[in-house]
This record gives sequence, C-alpha cells and structure tokens, in this order.
Amino acid sequence: MPDTVSHANGERVLADLNALRALGSYKTGVHKPTFSEPHKQSLDWLVRKLPDAGLIGAIDGIGNILGTSAKPGPKLLAGSHLESQNYAGWLDGPLGVVYALEAARVLNTEPSLKGAVEVAAWCDEEGHFGSFLGSRSFVGQVSEAEIDTARDRTSGRTMRDALLEMGLAGRPRVTAEPGRHVGYLEAHIEQGDTLESGKLAIGVVTSIVGIWQYRITFTGEQNHAGTTRMAVRKDAGLTLAKFCVAIDERFPAACGPRTVWTTGRITLDPGAPSIIPGGAEMLFQIRDDNPAVIARLEELLRTMAADAAAKGPCSVSVEKLRTGAPAMMNAGFQDAIEAASKTLAGGRSLRMPSGAGHDAQMLATIMPAGMLFVPSIGGISHHWTENTADADIVAGAQVFVDACRRILAG
Amino acid sequence: MPDTVSHANGERVLADLNALRALGSYKTGVHKPTFSEPHKQSLDWLVRKLPDAGLIGAIDGIGNILGTSAKPGPKLLAGSHLESQNYAGWLDGPLGVVYALEAARVLNTEPSLKGAVEVAAWCDEEGHFGSFLGSRSFVGQVSEAEIDTARDRTSGRTMRDALLEMGLAGRPRVTAEPGRHVGYLEAHIEQGDTLESGKLAIGVVTSIVGIWQYRITFTGEQNHAGTTRMAVRKDAGLTLAKFCVAIDERFPAACGPRTVWTTGRITLDPGAPSIIPGGAEMLFQIRDDNPAVIARLEELLRTMAADAAAKGPCSVSVEKLRTGAPAMMNAGFQDAIEAASKTLAGGRSLRMPSGAGHDAQMLATIMPAGMLFVPSIGGISHHWTENTADADIVAGAQVFVDACRRILAG
Repeated sequence: MPDTVSHANGERVLADLNALRALGSYKTGVHKPTFSEPHKQSLDWLVRKLPDAGLIGAIDGIGNILGTSAKPGPKLLAGSHLESQNYAGWLDGPLGVVYALEAARVLNTEPSLKGAVEVAAWCDEEGHFGSFLGSRSFVGQVSEAEIDTARDRTSGRTMRDALLEMGLAGRPRVTAEPGRHVGYLEAHIEQGDTLESGKLAIGVVTSIVGIWQYRITFTGEQNHAGTTRMAVRKDAGLTLAKFCVAIDERFPAACGPRTVWTTGRITLDPGAPSIIPGGAEMLFQIRDDNPAVIARLEELLRTMAADAAAKGPCSVSVEKLRTGAPAMMNAGFQDAIEAASKTLAGGRSLRMPSGAGHDAQMLATIMPAGMLFVPSIGGISHHWTENTADADIVAGAQVFVDACRRILAG
Repeated sequence: MPDTVSHANGERVLADLNALRALGSYKTGVHKPTFSEPHKQSLDWLVRKLPDAGLIGAIDGIGNILGTSAKPGPKLLAGSHLESQNYAGWLDGPLGVVYALEAARVLNTEPSLKGAVEVAAWCDEEGHFGSFLGSRSFVGQVSEAEIDTARDRTSGRTMRDALLEMGLAGRPRVTAEPGRHVGYLEAHIEQGDTLESGKLAIGVVTSIVGIWQYRITFTGEQNHAGTTRMAVRKDAGLTLAKFCVAIDERFPAACGPRTVWTTGRITLDPGAPSIIPGGAEMLFQIRDDNPAVIARLEELLRTMAADAAAKGPCSVSVEKLRTGAPAMMNAGFQDAIEAASKTLAGGRSLRMPSGAGHDAQMLATIMPAGMLFVPSIGGISHHWTENTADADIVAGAQVFVDACRRILAG
C-alpha cells in the first residue's frame, strides 16, 4: 500500500504514556483522582505538549482541555481523559489522549493532508464528582447548579472547592462550536477479554451500550431472630436472595448475545445479626446496545417482581433509576478503523459493542463518533494491574493515526 | 387453696411500669439506651423504691443495681433490666424489674415467710455497649480491659466516658456472693406469638436457646459490570444469594422443631452499582436449645459450603464467631411457676424454650435460674408498638410473686 502519510512514532507514544504514568504512580498503575495534584500535573503536561502538534489550548472552567488548530480544512476531534479511578491502571484514559496527540503530531504537520486533528482531554470521565462531567459540559448538558452540588464521592470535597484549589474557579467552560468538527474519535483499552481471547489487536466499536439501572425493594416484617418461628417470618433478605437466583435462572433465555446484568449492592434493613430483616434493597443494572432486548428484560423483571409479591410473604417494588439509550458509532468511522487495521494490523480486528461507558457516547449526541479498542491483558481494568502489551499499544497507535487520516480525507 | 401470702398489687405494678415508661417515652414505647439520661433516671427511680421492699442498694461501677435485704433466711435474687433498645417497647426489661420489686414488697414484709427477695437491675442487657455486660459482670466474666474497649454501637461513645458522665467511674462492681442466693428468677415478655396464639397467660421457660453465629465469606473476582461477559464472571454476590436459598431449602429437613436461623446482614464488596462484587459476606445465626441439633446443622452448613466452593466459581469459607451453649432452667423453679400458674392463672401455662437471650442465662452459670413469660401482643418486640394486655401483666405479677414465695418456702 502507498505510504501516504507518516506512521505513528511508537517509541514516542510509549514514552508519553510512561511520562503520564510517573505522575501519581501507584505500584504499576496510578492513583490520579479528578482534581488531585497528579491530575493537575497531567493536564499541565498535555497543555505543554499541544504546540508540538500545532495546537493551542488551556484548561477550561470544568477541567477540560481542547487543543485547537488554525490549519484550514476539516477538523477531527480526538481524545479521552487523564484522571484515573482510585488506585487503578495507567492506560484507562491516557491511551486515548496520547493516541490523539500522536495523530495530531503526525497529521497536522503533513502538508499534503487537509485539515487537522484537535485534541481533547475530558475531565472526570471516571465519575469522581459526577457522570461524564467534562464531555457532558462540552455538549452543553451540565448546568452551574449541577456543579454547585457536585462532591468528590471519596473525600466529600465540593467541586467548587476543588475548582478553586485548581485555580479554575470563574474560568469559562468551552462548549462545542456547531459545525467545527467532522466527528470525534476515541481510543481506549477494551476492559474485557474479547480481543485477548480471540488473539485480536483492534476492536472496532459498533455502539456503546446503554445502562438501565434499577432499585428493587423488598418489604417484609422486621422481627426478633430468636423468638419468631420460621413459619411466620416475612424475611425480606431471603426474598431478595430468591429473586437474585430467579434472575440468574430466567434472564439467559430472554437476553441478547451480549447482554450483561449485575447486582452490585445489597442492603438489609436493619442489618443486625439478631434481627430478621424487614427491608432489603438491591441495585440491579442491565446493559445492552439493543433497546428491544432491554425492554424485553425489563418486562420480565417486572413480571418476576409481581409474581414474587403475589407468592409472598414480602412485597416487591421495581424502581428505574436510570435509562441509558445506547450510543451508536458512526458507520463510516467504523469502516475507517477497519480499513486501517487491515493495512497496519493484519486485519486482526473485530466489530464489537462497548460494554463500558465512554466520553464518546456524550460526543455522539452532537456529532458522528467512533471508538477503537486495544486488548486488555486478562480483561482487567479499574485495578492497578491493568495493562496492555507494548506491541499492542504501538499497533493501536498506528491504526488510530491512519483511521484519523482516512476520516479527514473523507 | 389457703391464701398463705398477700397477692401482688396489680394497680401498683401497672403504676410503676407507667412511671418507668414516662422516663424517655417515645410514642407508646420508650427510647432509653444504656447510660442515656432517661436510663439514669430509671436507675435512680429504682434505688429510691428499694426501701419500700426493705432493701437497700445503689448503682455499681457498671450500672447494675442490687438491692439487698437484712432479713434472715434464704434469699431469692430476681430482676431484669431497665434500658431499652433504641425506640423500642416499654415492657422489655422493666416488666421483670417491677415484678421483682413487687415480689420483694409483698414477701419481704410478710413476717410468716422466712427469707427475702433481693432485686437486681442488670445493666445493658440490650447490648448497646456489649453482650450482657451487667449480668456478666455480676457472675465475674467481665474484665476491666473489656470495659476499656467497649463503645456505644450507635453513637461510638466509649463506655469509660459514659461511666464518667453517669458519675460511676471508679465505683466498685458488685459480684455474686457465693452461697447467698438460692437462685434467680426473671420475668419477661415472650417476644413471640406462642402464648398469644395459644390463648395462654404464662410461659414456663425450660431453657434459653444457645446462639451460634457464623460469618460466611464468598470470594470471587471483582470486575467491570459492563465489559465482563456473563460466562466468565465470578460474582460473589450471586454465589451468596444461591447459598441463602440453599439453606432455606435444606435446613428444614435437618432442624429441630423449634430451631430458627437468620441471615441478618449481607455485604457486597465493593458494593458499587457498576462493579461485579468480588467479595460477599453474610452474618448467619442458628438458635436451638439442643446442641445435637446445632451440631447437625453446622455440619450441614459446612458441607454445603464445601459443595458450593467445589462447584465454583467462588470460594466459600465458614467462620464460627460465637458458640452459645443453651442455658437450662432449674426444674424446681419450673414446677414452682407452673404450680403458681395453676392457682392464680387458671393453669393457662406452657413449658417452652426462650428463643431470645436473657440475663437469666448468665445467672444460670452460677446458680439455679428460672424464667416466666407473659404474652406479647402480635409477638412484637424491639419496636415501640410492643405491648401486653394489662390483665396479662397483672396475672403475670400474681404468678411471679407466688412462684417466689414457693421457691423461698423451699
């Protein structure tokens, strides 16, 4: 194939990622919560790097960075995030930012290529203070009132205090300029084991699944664990356990090929060793990229709840806390990634939905969006052992840069 | 039958119970945690009442009261506790103290009766700071080191601070004087519905069940709730739910006629909506008065845990936190209560084990002990709606006083 553009510089990509890993390092990963000192250092690092790609940018009033180019022609927005979960991995976020930076360095200085890659770092994708605050702010969905009430879920520090300490209080927030970008491209580690188990190098993301979150509440009768006969008990905890097992038995026949569901939290009330729980609550979520599948499963869930309540001895209520429409990735962007993968990664790619949420789902609400995955060793993420082989990181960078080139070339 | 002694004064008993209810009243019940102001007022109330029964006593260094008599002859110890669970009932504890006081008032002033009833209020039967601290202290099983580390389970206040604020710091603790008492008799509300459903007035307690407490821990693999396929999950929470259901299915075939078992608390780790729990823990207890039944159930529990671990995908461990030998009630005391019930309550009594723990189980480790139950309306306890019909309260007092007379008469 004709080498129409420069390749990614793999060594430079690895060096940048390791430079970011050195800021807030923890074991082989990082501890870099939103608005921590190492997060601030990482943002400053990116601002200093932007000119190498012909970009200028600063940190805005919510902690976002948008590096803009004066080069004529179409602009492709690319990026990810720089903060981490607590005591977590080094690539979740920085990989996408460094790939975007590398694409900008390679393509923005290419005289034969019209247009430019513009680089973004979205603040707080990891949700220390809220849900996708940075990318949601950029697409115009975060109010000042929401920022007023946001707090760090670990420390309780208010977002206003954090912005003040970061020197960002009062700065304007950058929002999308209508028509400026032909779309948004983001790279990320897969966070699952699909690519690794298939010996593949590149995931071409077809959609980001929606998350439907429910609170299921069981109400029985609190009573003394010693004096209340088994026959007359109304044990909300036992009813909850039976419900979890029933979900495990009945969902597989009704779900789609990639549906996942999780009971992440269980609380018994009052939760004392010698008291029969009169109340019990579970947080339950379903993820899929097909709303029809979700609708079917939600109907099943409600039927099961009604059946359990009718059978007794506890009442059951299902409350929907969050409806997450799936975000569809642009078909042309998928083709661009797949074509780049054929050229530069031996075609070892797979079209797949993302089970995790990403900033791309926010950008997808206002412009065409695409995502590229690289393999996660052991499928591990949100843990300091998270990792990707250097060869896979470099291959991903090559494919990403070439996909950007193809998108800008139209 | 010959009216050898005076009867209980039912109006006086009801008036005393209502006087105690007025201290720390909450709706129709009380909120009188250990070492709260209304608890202190209740203790002071009892100290002031003791002379009416020919007794003298004071609050000791752990909050116990022991009213002693100078009357010659055998001494029967009787009592219960004055503090309550948080926002709980008015009779759980005070009923037994007022019955003891009434028995002392009636019998200690009876010249024809040798000996006396001595009245005790045991501190913290309800376990705000520890397990049966007052009665355990009296039988010599509480060290200063245990008091040093005890804290209020609701407020976190240390027991040392509480004793200081009560003016009790440095006071000696009263312990049992060997040979002084022929035994201990305690009255209590049933806290279950056996008497009420059988239209009975008096429960003759045969034993206080032992409580065996376990922590069952499930260890799987924490992972991302969106990117981890159902087929490869090691969900500790789901394994726990299946285990709860398995207990519900298999215990009934192995238990005794009155065994009860309870999962009072469930905790998932980390307990976040979008994370597959890698760890899960349940607090599980079994109560029975037959150690052979408990041994059989514990063996079943351990077999089930081993089976669950072998089946996978999570490991399971069973840790025994507490072994509670049942306390057998003295046969002669049971006969005395039953005989008194035949005379004064139309024989509407039932011999039954106590599923709840009581101070009597501590006293039973050093002297003969007995317990009498009165009906609980709806079987409710540890809730402000706890109640007993006035007629049942008075009938219970009559039987209690006469049972004390019979025991003292030998």
